[in-house]
Amino acid sequence: MAPGTTTLELSADPVQLTRQLVDIESVSGDEKVIADSIEAALRPYPHLQVIRDGNVVIARTDLGRADRVVIAGHIDTVPIAGNVPSWTTGEGDDLLLWGRGSCDMKGGVAVQLSAAVALTEPVRDVTWIFYDNEEVEAELNGLGRISRERPELLIGSFAVLCEPSNAGIEGGCQGTMRAEIVLNGIAAHSARAWMGNNAIHQAAAVLGRLDEYQPAEVEVDGLLYREGLNAVAISGGIAGNVIPDRCTIGVNYRFAPDKTTAEAEAHLRTVFDGYPLVITDAAPAARPGLDQPAAAEFLAAVGGEPSAKFGWTDVARFAELGVPAVNFGPGDPSKAHADDEFCPAADVRNCRDALLRWLSPAH
Amino acid sequence: MAPGTTTLELSADPVQLTRQLVDIESVSGDEKVIADSIEAALRPYPHLQVIRDGNVVIARTDLGRADRVVIAGHIDTVPIAGNVPSWTTGEGDDLLLWGRGSCDMKGGVAVQLSAAVALTEPVRDVTWIFYDNEEVEAELNGLGRISRERPELLIGSFAVLCEPSNAGIEGGCQGTMRAEIVLNGIAAHSARAWMGNNAIHQAAAVLGRLDEYQPAEVEVDGLLYREGLNAVAISGGIAGNVIPDRCTIGVNYRFAPDKTTAEAEAHLRTVFDGYPLVITDAAPAARPGLDQPAAAEFLAAVGGEPSAKFGWTDVARFAELGVPAVNFGPGDPSKAHADDEFCPAADVRNCRDALLRWLSPAH
Repeated sequence: MAPGTTTLELSADPVQLTRQLVDIESVSGDEKVIADSIEAALRPYPHLQVIRDGNVVIARTDLGRADRVVIAGHIDTVPIAGNVPSWTTGEGDDLLLWGRGSCDMKGGVAVQLSAAVALTEPVRDVTWIFYDNEEVEAELNGLGRISRERPELLIGSFAVLCEPSNAGIEGGCQGTMRAEIVLNGIAAHSARAWMGNNAIHQAAAVLGRLDEYQPAEVEVDGLLYREGLNAVAISGGIAGNVIPDRCTIGVNYRFAPDKTTAEAEAHLRTVFDGYPLVITDAAPAARPGLDQPAAAEFLAAVGGEPSAKFGWTDVARFAELGVPAVNFGPGDPSKAHADDEFCPAADVRNCRDALLRWLSPAH
Repeated sequence: MAPGTTTLELSADPVQLTRQLVDIESVSGDEKVIADSIEAALRPYPHLQVIRDGNVVIARTDLGRADRVVIAGHIDTVPIAGNVPSWTTGEGDDLLLWGRGSCDMKGGVAVQLSAAVALTEPVRDVTWIFYDNEEVEAELNGLGRISRERPELLIGSFAVLCEPSNAGIEGGCQGTMRAEIVLNGIAAHSARAWMGNNAIHQAAAVLGRLDEYQPAEVEVDGLLYREGLNAVAISGGIAGNVIPDRCTIGVNYRFAPDKTTAEAEAHLRTVFDGYPLVITDAAPAARPGLDQPAAAEFLAAVGGEPSAKFGWTDVARFAELGVPAVNFGPGDPSKAHADDEFCPAADVRNCRDALLRWLSPAH
């Protein structure tokens, strides 16, 4: 075993396993120890084929089932804020597990690991994926790297991403597009303003359109998505006595999965007709895919009503490969990245039990 | 004579004198050599009482005239841009003198020095002022320092500031006021924009008021002043996926000399009623004072039509002491601070001749 590797108790209580995982620091870029620990813990299980690729660990059953599903989660966290090692408060059903990554998403990773070793004969073949660098620039993302270099490893009829979702199903994800509008004027001394053209004043009309904009609510595969179009940045001005000749407005459009990125761009160009718009960044939306047979059985096993996922998540990477995907994991997503990050122990157990109900052979 | 001091030829051609002054580097804060040179050149003239105070040089006649006028100019320049020493182009009436400070305002200083030594018996007593640090922060300004510490030295019935004005009379100056409006919202993830309140969107209404604002044109003492109210800065935004909770707008109001700074502030508070406005900076306007007898004779001596001064200049310091003041000097004010700064030789001679016509005893 490599130095520093923790012996993970995969067959023990998944809440204890979550604590073990939180206590292994794994800020993005520093995932080697946790990846080593996960790989070492999975290797002994004969029903799993374990693949190590950089700091991505993949464990697959290969039972020749007619169907294959993918269950994935990231092993990195945002920077620690004095909240490692972990601690708990409360007892029994009210036990809360505190610490960096407890919610986003080592509770989910514990659910994956616990189910992976328990499901020795799942009714569908399963590809379990543990990947690095989710919390940083997209080009470093381990799942994205595998999708470019070894996309066959991500293929299945349906995927579950164990991101926090309050142990409910959040389907698909909205797309996100960023754009910039640069308004040009003519600089002049502010004592002779009539010789210039104030670029900041031109922003009044652009911001007016944003202020009056009514974001759409769109139903896709039975889930309701709420869009949003917002200015996220504005800057302009040269000096206190100069009419500014430039004002830059940055906008962010969050769009429902009924639209491709091209359709989202066309919508933005309609909204800002008459202004120069430059798209600076875009990530596609993902449909919830709840019409898939595997998804229907998953819904039945989890119970409750699925809801739409508003934020962008890696489910969109599966969508790009044609694999419908949902978010399903322990913890409140609003506690992700929070200094008071925590995860309810009951969520961890409920999610593990739901996966077992879904994929275990009928009794 | 102190080391480095140049012997200025005050009774020679004022254009040659301008070249001599340009060739003495005197960027703000580094005026000792030029002040030494001016002081040394003025001392030999018995009709002038010379006072040295820091790098301010004051030369006064004291002939017991019923009236006293003040004629002032600054001896510093903005930083040199490879344009010292001076050079000339053209000949005769078309001669142009090039170099840092030629326009702002060593041409004017040459006019002052040349007239100061020629006017041995002026019809009004004259206080000639040469001061430092005009091009930097207001608290360093030599004229401001004298007005605080020895205000009696600035007293007269009328003042002329030899700032560039194309050798015409520019009366008074507009006031300037800066203010900041900080708009507050509520931060939220941009995927859930409805949980926040976009502070940048709030700016639409503020900028709309500015865009629709009709600046006043105000006649004061026969001169027409064009006001201006402009955004000169805007900033807001936290990150590309966050609804911004703050947007700051900086505005600059240039107001006519019919208003005090208190009246200007009241006007701004009316325009931006409903928004929190913080005044960050203000400098009063100055009336042109062309109704003064000394001013009327000055107008007659110079000829032409006086116009309003839009930019703020040190004439306002005289106004604060109750001394009406005008700008009158060689050079195009739009060439002040420009890398291709120059001054027409004809302007220098015309300004000097106008001062002599105004203050010489009748032939």
